[in-house]
Amino acid sequence: MSMPKGPQPFPRNEYLRRLSAVKAEMERREIDVLVVTTSANITYLSGYTSKSGYVPQGLIVSLKNEEPTFFTRRQDAPAALHQMFIERTRVNGYPEALIANPDMDGFDAVIDFLRDNGFARRQIGLEMNFLTHRSIEKFKTRMSDATIVDFTNGVTWIRGIKSDLEIAVMREAAAISDAAMLRARDVIRPGVREADAASEIIATLVRGTNGRAGTDLASFYVCASPRSATPHIRWSEDVFRNGSQINLEFGGVRHGYVSPLMRTLTIGKPSERLRRLHEGEVAGMEAALAAIKPGATCSEVAEAFYSTLRKHGFEKDSRCGYAVGIEWTEPTASLKLGDSTVLRPNMTFHLMLGNWIDEDLGYVISETFRVTETGAETFSRIPRDLFEIYV
Amino acid sequence: MSMPKGPQPFPRNEYLRRLSAVKAEMERREIDVLVVTTSANITYLSGYTSKSGYVPQGLIVSLKNEEPTFFTRRQDAPAALHQMFIERTRVNGYPEALIANPDMDGFDAVIDFLRDNGFARRQIGLEMNFLTHRSIEKFKTRMSDATIVDFTNGVTWIRGIKSDLEIAVMREAAAISDAAMLRARDVIRPGVREADAASEIIATLVRGTNGRAGTDLASFYVCASPRSATPHIRWSEDVFRNGSQINLEFGGVRHGYVSPLMRTLTIGKPSERLRRLHEGEVAGMEAALAAIKPGATCSEVAEAFYSTLRKHGFEKDSRCGYAVGIEWTEPTASLKLGDSTVLRPNMTFHLMLGNWIDEDLGYVISETFRVTETGAETFSRIPRDLFEIYV
Repeated sequence: MSMPKGPQPFPRNEYLRRLSAVKAEMERREIDVLVVTTSANITYLSGYTSKSGYVPQGLIVSLKNEEPTFFTRRQDAPAALHQMFIERTRVNGYPEALIANPDMDGFDAVIDFLRDNGFARRQIGLEMNFLTHRSIEKFKTRMSDATIVDFTNGVTWIRGIKSDLEIAVMREAAAISDAAMLRARDVIRPGVREADAASEIIATLVRGTNGRAGTDLASFYVCASPRSATPHIRWSEDVFRNGSQINLEFGGVRHGYVSPLMRTLTIGKPSERLRRLHEGEVAGMEAALAAIKPGATCSEVAEAFYSTLRKHGFEKDSRCGYAVGIEWTEPTASLKLGDSTVLRPNMTFHLMLGNWIDEDLGYVISETFRVTETGAETFSRIPRDLFEIYV
Repeated sequence: MSMPKGPQPFPRNEYLRRLSAVKAEMERREIDVLVVTTSANITYLSGYTSKSGYVPQGLIVSLKNEEPTFFTRRQDAPAALHQMFIERTRVNGYPEALIANPDMDGFDAVIDFLRDNGFARRQIGLEMNFLTHRSIEKFKTRMSDATIVDFTNGVTWIRGIKSDLEIAVMREAAAISDAAMLRARDVIRPGVREADAASEIIATLVRGTNGRAGTDLASFYVCASPRSATPHIRWSEDVFRNGSQINLEFGGVRHGYVSPLMRTLTIGKPSERLRRLHEGEVAGMEAALAAIKPGATCSEVAEAFYSTLRKHGFEKDSRCGYAVGIEWTEPTASLKLGDSTVLRPNMTFHLMLGNWIDEDLGYVISETFRVTETGAETFSRIPRDLFEIYV
């Protein structure tokens, strides 16, 4: 019995639509074949979410073929057969002898394929961004008669505008984030260990909600006093106390798509400075959301936030958001001053207003939203509150 | 109030010992200053486990100074002050304006520091392995009078031999893996959704055991029928059924250190082919463990496994293990044919005997062990069984 095809999160037509957009961009850049190397873009173009990207892999998109061809480690090929919408013959497992081998790796298998299929002297697009210097040199050396063009973020920009099907999946992910935030409000109490609260919140992110499981775990942070002035500590072994502040950041995941959510909690009354910062941030968030509409720029949205926050007596030195979708951040548009990206319907962003002001004061709040025909739709139903826990 | 120093997982002397070993290697290679860029090596030399490595950061080790100097994103600097053993003045937060900036990034701050501190014409070690082509070019261009030497895996090889303190932490991590495996055996039942079982197992990995929490989550896979012939699918939304096979891979984490563990379960009686494979694998594992002693090579251990498995009528095409410690795999020694690394006391490995034979048959079992003065000590107390679940 061979590996059966698994349930597909999207219909075949959805993948063909995405591939058509990529092929149009390839034609515009006069590229004959594209080697997609980033996991998120492979997920986007095929449905594959198995975690094999720590070794070389490549999804090869040719103008000549409707479906792409995939190269991955031999032991991961069954996962590709199961998850990808493409036909069996297009999945290739390269030998395990190429793993932890100083002389050859999986990209040699990709290069062999390109040479054997008439691309030795053609224009080849390559996603270089996460490739090592050595891997890029290998492509240039072994395909010295070809022209290798850096296609970094070419697919990622196309991912920026979601289909309604993708939006539906991101709403499912947001419902999981909401369930986890509600769980956090239930389990964060004085005397509870941070790790135990984290355990309950993470369990909710995996279990999901409304009968839909989380399909993966994304970044997860519980930064509690005295660590609430920094964003990227997982959790600690301390217990929460009266007066603790807890900054939460996590995101539910559905089929690779993440809807991040951040909120700040206090056990007991917040400090006056924290309360004022919260008020400024929420006012800034509302100003930013009001500025969103097709035709506005990312910079204009950011300016609405920054100028409102400034009126409340605070500054934020980091950007106030970024494009979001598969694997959380899309490294393309940022909600920051000077980013002239024009908003279009069904672009999705994480309006990330985390603000780590000094060693004493950090605060987080965020919303994941899509641009609508007239404004913004936020996915979460969690109130924009500074949650105060009293026992 | 400034960010307080947090509890340190290791005493100061332990970090100074590690730094001395790195400095000796730098002297051997005639390097004046080393820029450590990989997260696991930064953890090793400082205690830092905050997750800021998705943007440039560098730990600078100079022969002239006892303590290293750290550069990270401004908002992550408080985490470094809290977690690192070094004094406050050695932690530098570079401006948020260097994030998502096409022209400059955090490595410019590192380079400025090197130039301002007399290293403009010196020998500079740089961990290049995870740097992009562009970052390496930046170092070469902006420090054109210096000699830039690739120090990839220089620190990682030093990590290979653990101190007794590190071994104690890896035993704690192994106890968490064991607790999670026991939980898995309790919750995997016919009719239970894979995601719900995953939720319970992951919650155990975070909660920890014996009063010691898991301090992070590492890779986690539940590959259940019909996906048991491939290793890297997180979990699915299917329910387990009578006859299901479930391959589990996860690892408890303490202070960055991981002790991985893999076991295979069946609901009901295993197939005859699976049972025979299990017997061959366990015999191979015992042969491999018996071959371990100081002075033996990785290749000899692998040969003991492969030849025993072959007698049982099976082959395994992938390596049978690798050095393990901070962030799971150390990309140095492999338990595979031809790896001439000589075993020394307190080297630690994941003897990873996962074997994905064809689209029908995959099987997993593993042990995390250290080399002792006379043989091997495995950290897990879980029996080397093919666990059969009956209800």
